Amino acid sequence: MSNTAVEYARANEAKFRDEFFEFLRIQTISTDAAFAGNIQQGAEWVAARMKGIGIGKVDVVPTTGHPIVCGEWAGAGKDKPTVLFYAHYDVQPADPLERWDSPPFEPTLRDGKIYARGVVDDKIGVYACLKAVESFLKTGGNLPVNMKFLFEGEEETGSPSALEFLRSHKERVGCDVTVICDGSGPPESPTVALSCRGLVGAEVTVTGPPQDIHSGSVGGLVENPVHTASRIIASFHDSSGRILIPGFYDGVPELSPEEKRLLPGMQKEYLKGLSASLGDFAEWGDPDVSPVERIWVRPTCDVNGIYGGYQGYGMKTIIPSKAGFKVTMRLAPGQDPDTIAEAFTAHVKRFDSESTRVEVEIRQKAWPATSDPESKAVKALIQATRAGFGKEPAIVRMGGTVPIAGTLLRETGIAPVFLAVGTGGLIHSPNEFMYDDYFITAIEMVIAFLAELGAFS
Amino acid sequence: MSNTAVEYARANEAKFRDEFFEFLRIQTISTDAAFAGNIQQGAEWVAARMKGIGIGKVDVVPTTGHPIVCGEWAGAGKDKPTVLFYAHYDVQPADPLERWDSPPFEPTLRDGKIYARGVVDDKIGVYACLKAVESFLKTGGNLPVNMKFLFEGEEETGSPSALEFLRSHKERVGCDVTVICDGSGPPESPTVALSCRGLVGAEVTVTGPPQDIHSGSVGGLVENPVHTASRIIASFHDSSGRILIPGFYDGVPELSPEEKRLLPGMQKEYLKGLSASLGDFAEWGDPDVSPVERIWVRPTCDVNGIYGGYQGYGMKTIIPSKAGFKVTMRLAPGQDPDTIAEAFTAHVKRFDSESTRVEVEIRQKAWPATSDPESKAVKALIQATRAGFGKEPAIVRMGGTVPIAGTLLRETGIAPVFLAVGTGGLIHSPNEFMYDDYFITAIEMVIAFLAELGAFS
Repeated sequence: MSNTAVEYARANEAKFRDEFFEFLRIQTISTDAAFAGNIQQGAEWVAARMKGIGIGKVDVVPTTGHPIVCGEWAGAGKDKPTVLFYAHYDVQPADPLERWDSPPFEPTLRDGKIYARGVVDDKIGVYACLKAVESFLKTGGNLPVNMKFLFEGEEETGSPSALEFLRSHKERVGCDVTVICDGSGPPESPTVALSCRGLVGAEVTVTGPPQDIHSGSVGGLVENPVHTASRIIASFHDSSGRILIPGFYDGVPELSPEEKRLLPGMQKEYLKGLSASLGDFAEWGDPDVSPVERIWVRPTCDVNGIYGGYQGYGMKTIIPSKAGFKVTMRLAPGQDPDTIAEAFTAHVKRFDSESTRVEVEIRQKAWPATSDPESKAVKALIQATRAGFGKEPAIVRMGGTVPIAGTLLRETGIAPVFLAVGTGGLIHSPNEFMYDDYFITAIEMVIAFLAELGAFS
Repeated sequence: MSNTAVEYARANEAKFRDEFFEFLRIQTISTDAAFAGNIQQGAEWVAARMKGIGIGKVDVVPTTGHPIVCGEWAGAGKDKPTVLFYAHYDVQPADPLERWDSPPFEPTLRDGKIYARGVVDDKIGVYACLKAVESFLKTGGNLPVNMKFLFEGEEETGSPSALEFLRSHKERVGCDVTVICDGSGPPESPTVALSCRGLVGAEVTVTGPPQDIHSGSVGGLVENPVHTASRIIASFHDSSGRILIPGFYDGVPELSPEEKRLLPGMQKEYLKGLSASLGDFAEWGDPDVSPVERIWVRPTCDVNGIYGGYQGYGMKTIIPSKAGFKVTMRLAPGQDPDTIAEAFTAHVKRFDSESTRVEVEIRQKAWPATSDPESKAVKALIQATRAGFGKEPAIVRMGGTVPIAGTLLRETGIAPVFLAVGTGGLIHSPNEFMYDDYFITAIEMVIAFLAELGAFS
């Protein structure tokens, strides 16, 4: 059954690629309200394709944010497990636009790579699922498992509506296996990830004088909000990169001796894969913790952007009225986003004074999540990955955050598995790309995963 | 002679105001290359008015930057001193535009105030000079002193072309008295300033990874340029505001006991005058130095603007590729801008590392300048100010910088005097304004000053 499905997918590769490019052209940027219409268009595009391939029950569910596209197919029979398949159709903003070699929303095939915003993060996740399902249904009229579909449009803003949705639509997500189809890596070294980090996103604003004022008239008499913001940021780390926010490391578990033994072995290969986006950089960070541990299982606190005062050409001799910055904290397994958000807020508020006022707004929270390495789903995942790439995958962790993973774990009680079908890089950066040779592999991996899960039961 | 001139000015007040508004509409922003055409237009407007009132020798001198408008009138006779009169026709940028209650380049009379970018800094300086000269020449055909005019268009960018011009056109600036007509204050408490601070302007850039990268993929492994920039800025001051850059205070003189005695008395009045722009602020700064000393005779180091990473709506989970900030250091009398620029650069470069590269570009340098309190020019200045406002002026210092003052002092050997004819505030800020009641006073003060100087000789 899966061989026939794979043959169908291969025979339709050119048609699928054209249709995928159509999907990539929709500017589903979720972080900027200006793109709300494009997001809606993206949701409807996905729903129309689901209906078109024979998924009977499809809904575009409105939320207070962007719509969630749901669907269900229950034709495999009661003896087969129900798999909840998650991916996200929204993408990161494309700026800085001038750093793209081709337009971010005009997918371009160049040197064997497809360049487009969101191509691997995560439109390929949504699309590979749809085409895998189509390949089964068009060839045998059946799927190896029952399926529920959950395609959201707020992943890049921290999935704020998903928690509410999961709580109020339990019937739509009740399942035996949850699959998070997001993430990507280099195809020459396939991986299976067993956890993702959590996240707390915050914005800090510092206000001083009621307006920008002449730095000569009052310089020396007025505290400068940019200075306060800088002192706050400088207080986050010691010189080695260890985070100094009180209580930040509470609950972060020590790795098991077995994990500690395995991690350094993966390090070299994994870091090689990162070199495309990092160039000739000098490694940095807590010297007491190995690089991959720092990325995968230790927390971070990074400023994503800072602003204040005059940024134009030349000079402007002012003391700015205001400064601010955006922060992302990545949480290790064991950390609680509520506790970390409180610890961060308390630390930053210590800098509040009568000469510069400091405000903290928590913008995002996501729980970390870890798979059950002994589960059938993880075994199916490893087999599907091996089949897709023709080699043994390395077992790794994910440095990034899939907000829905922790939420699904907490709401369904089922540890999720992470199916990474994207092969490429520069996600969240200019020139995000996917290897075109592995476009069809992504679809084949979903086919193999579903077939394996069906065969297990 | 000066009474007739004053009568002429008063009789023409309405006409003069209309013509002044025409001047205020020209967008002579010198810090942004996009306005080069407007600057040229401004220079030609000034030159045309000079010719129109009978100053025979007028030139718009091109420089590598913006033009300098020169002129000369030598009809007072050899027994009269030659006064070099300086003002600047360029203005600060107007942003943030949304904070203006009326358009910055559409002068608006509201509640007894004229609102416009540059109205007091320093278009009134240029215009009051022209109208004072006109008032003498149209009523008696003569001036009380010989005059040279130097109106520049780069004051707000640190007067980079003026030094070169002064060196290569010594004949155009040779004089007995140099008058810097710039600055403004509240009319209820007139002042005469005896010094201005110098300035070093710099831009610091910090570069990390070759592009913005996903904060999950590499967070913990890559040093964040915004963090480095923040550590640099945090290193500039201790918690009380004292500057920590090594060597920064070298050469800053102690005030004389007499000055120390006088300063606290001026403090309350002066700070009251600032309250319009500061609102309900908490005073801040080195507690060992009185507030007015901190503004007038102590150096500062203030970040004017900072940038890096994502500044748009919502969040973007990246480690930025780059961060940067602009700094202005105000120099106390006795400080040397070359030495301070070197000390600043050396200090900042200490943060350069292989994980984040730090570059410093010195953008502006200006020497501090101090008047000779015993000179005839200062005595004429005090008398003109007393005449203009009908009360005794306070002797003060200037916290701001007039770059040409230090340059003139170094090139001519003559200590400048500072004639502040503007009455208003919010210079460099939105809603810069001048009191309309004192529009004619500005012209009368120049008339009085020239008459006093002529009478002294």
